[in-house]
Amino acid sequence: MAETLTDKQRDKALAALNGWVYDESANSISHVFKFKDFSEAFGFMSRIALAAEAANHHPDWSNSFNKVTIILTSHDAGGLTQKDMALAKIIDEILI
Amino acid sequence: MAETLTDKQRDKALAALNGWVYDESANSISHVFKFKDFSEAFGFMSRIALAAEAANHHPDWSNSFNKVTIILTSHDAGGLTQKDMALAKIIDEILI
Repeated sequence: MAETLTDKQRDKALAALNGWVYDESANSISHVFKFKDFSEAFGFMSRIALAAEAANHHPDWSNSFNKVTIILTSHDAGGLTQKDMALAKIIDEILI
Repeated sequence: MAETLTDKQRDKALAALNGWVYDESANSISHVFKFKDFSEAFGFMSRIALAAEAANHHPDWSNSFNKVTIILTSHDAGGLTQKDMALAKIIDEILI
């Protein structure tokens, strides 16, 4: 099980990400993405699903047509870990 | 745009489905599905995504590891239509 990040580690990792928002009450980071249509949104989700499965770390997420909301936290560790930041980074890179 | 269903039409369609719950306040039907793991859950979602795109009618849904929550309504029609019932039927059939 990964260790939870210190505030300093978290802030440093967040600063290296693109538009992710820290939710203190949920101990998570989140991001809402909008696409042209469902096909583009689900294509994005499919690429994340493959990366998440490879990393054995999975998002909590929802989708409505062209909108994808992603929440990352490490349920087993009870907060944010390096795994969340690594998955967020992968998601950012999928969008480049 | 499809017409919204009458109460009678809705109840008849719901009776032919497997475990879908009508939410009067949201004018939608929903179903929570649980799987062995993320791979099985996302495989299920992928099959629904293909069917939804083919039908040009898409679910509002969320996923957390092995759990998939699906909400169906016809936003453009402002309620439940035959499109929702048809997509629910397809989802039921994917699980058989």
